[in-house]
Amino acid sequence: MVEPAFFRSLAAAAAAETLPRFRQHGPVSNKLAAGFDPVTEADQKAEDAIRRLITAAFPQHGVLGEEYGSTAGDGEHVWVIDPIDGTRAFISGLPVWGTLVGLTQRGDAVAGMMSQPFTGELFYSCGSGSFFEGPGGERKLQTRLTTDLATATLFTTTPALFKDAARARYDRLEASVRLARYGVDCYAFAMVAAGFADLVIEAGLQPYDIVGLIPIIEQAGGVVTRLDGGPAETGGDILASATAGLHAAALARFND
Amino acid sequence: MVEPAFFRSLAAAAAAETLPRFRQHGPVSNKLAAGFDPVTEADQKAEDAIRRLITAAFPQHGVLGEEYGSTAGDGEHVWVIDPIDGTRAFISGLPVWGTLVGLTQRGDAVAGMMSQPFTGELFYSCGSGSFFEGPGGERKLQTRLTTDLATATLFTTTPALFKDAARARYDRLEASVRLARYGVDCYAFAMVAAGFADLVIEAGLQPYDIVGLIPIIEQAGGVVTRLDGGPAETGGDILASATAGLHAAALARFND
Repeated sequence: MVEPAFFRSLAAAAAAETLPRFRQHGPVSNKLAAGFDPVTEADQKAEDAIRRLITAAFPQHGVLGEEYGSTAGDGEHVWVIDPIDGTRAFISGLPVWGTLVGLTQRGDAVAGMMSQPFTGELFYSCGSGSFFEGPGGERKLQTRLTTDLATATLFTTTPALFKDAARARYDRLEASVRLARYGVDCYAFAMVAAGFADLVIEAGLQPYDIVGLIPIIEQAGGVVTRLDGGPAETGGDILASATAGLHAAALARFND
Repeated sequence: MVEPAFFRSLAAAAAAETLPRFRQHGPVSNKLAAGFDPVTEADQKAEDAIRRLITAAFPQHGVLGEEYGSTAGDGEHVWVIDPIDGTRAFISGLPVWGTLVGLTQRGDAVAGMMSQPFTGELFYSCGSGSFFEGPGGERKLQTRLTTDLATATLFTTTPALFKDAARARYDRLEASVRLARYGVDCYAFAMVAAGFADLVIEAGLQPYDIVGLIPIIEQAGGVVTRLDGGPAETGGDILASATAGLHAAALARFND
């Protein structure tokens, strides 16, 4: 139902709003009274541009976006948008943020994209296979075949996401892998789909942080669920893995 | 003494070895008997290419590189090379590694460069001013004017670098800043020079992890020292700051 050309058009429309504002020292607002949850004009303008294209192409579909909330639709299809996943990276000049758009049908993520305009990368799945377009050309994505925690590379934004008993569980999982790396938001999930990393674990995700990534990982051979094993589309505490075997091993290590 | 064209030639020679091997699933060797310190053919070939160009242009100078060690010279000038700073990022597909080359004169870092070939970025200083070349064109680098810890952005590879009492000091510093981010190696120092971040703190650096970056940060208006206030050229526990005032405040918070 969704064509690659449509994802390319969403990526281009978002890039036209984000890239000219990247590394421009523009104003940063804080969404929180206590703490720091940054938002920029780039987030808002990009989501607006994406919503316009979706509404024009699929007027009957619902839309959920990080910045502008929910628009009701046919009750079956909902587009889920994070215009800049990794706003903290964006305002710090780092090229590891991305624009995420996913389509759910009766709650299942069936198509999705992540674009990174500074590097010129697009990762997407329209429901059959996952693909990369960017430097070096186009190729089909395939996860690594890792099944052993002892040889796995694990990503998380920060272990501080895991509190109290969950932190001890996280630390146990981290101690089981070969290499743990922090801090790269949606880019880590794309690297699992592309076969350069094996596990991503995150706590407290919103649906728009993960829905666009689910089809990309699943159609590349990976698995994404909540840490309780439930569907990842609702957000929450999320694990993505290169293989079903590794996913089972990591969930067991975390939850046992 | 060092011209920008020479740094461009080093960056190009390194890129010719690193970029074709990036995201190619090539073999990764482990330098450690216990633990994991990865090295790839890209690290080795890039250092070899850089050393050849330096030796041809400055036959009387010494050279110190991460992969091939020390070559004696005139006793006054030493080139310090990390062909891939962030090999863990490199093998994980992330575009936040860099090639670092610095020149020391009687122990002082007087010129340096960091290049990132996937994004096409070069940050350098030949001793007067710091400059960027890459997407969006060329520009002079200038640090932010941040002097207050409460509005600062802090980077570190991971808080786990700081052990025991040092960890408590690190945590106190992190609790004082607005935003803390983990995981991006040399790229974080470049972002301080470019005015997108304010502080980088790292423990246990080698000279080749920092020498190339010192002139870039200092000539952009920033300050780099060891956490004990000594010169950063020796490596060790390092703090880089956007301004002298912020540097003093961060050292005081960490050390008091």
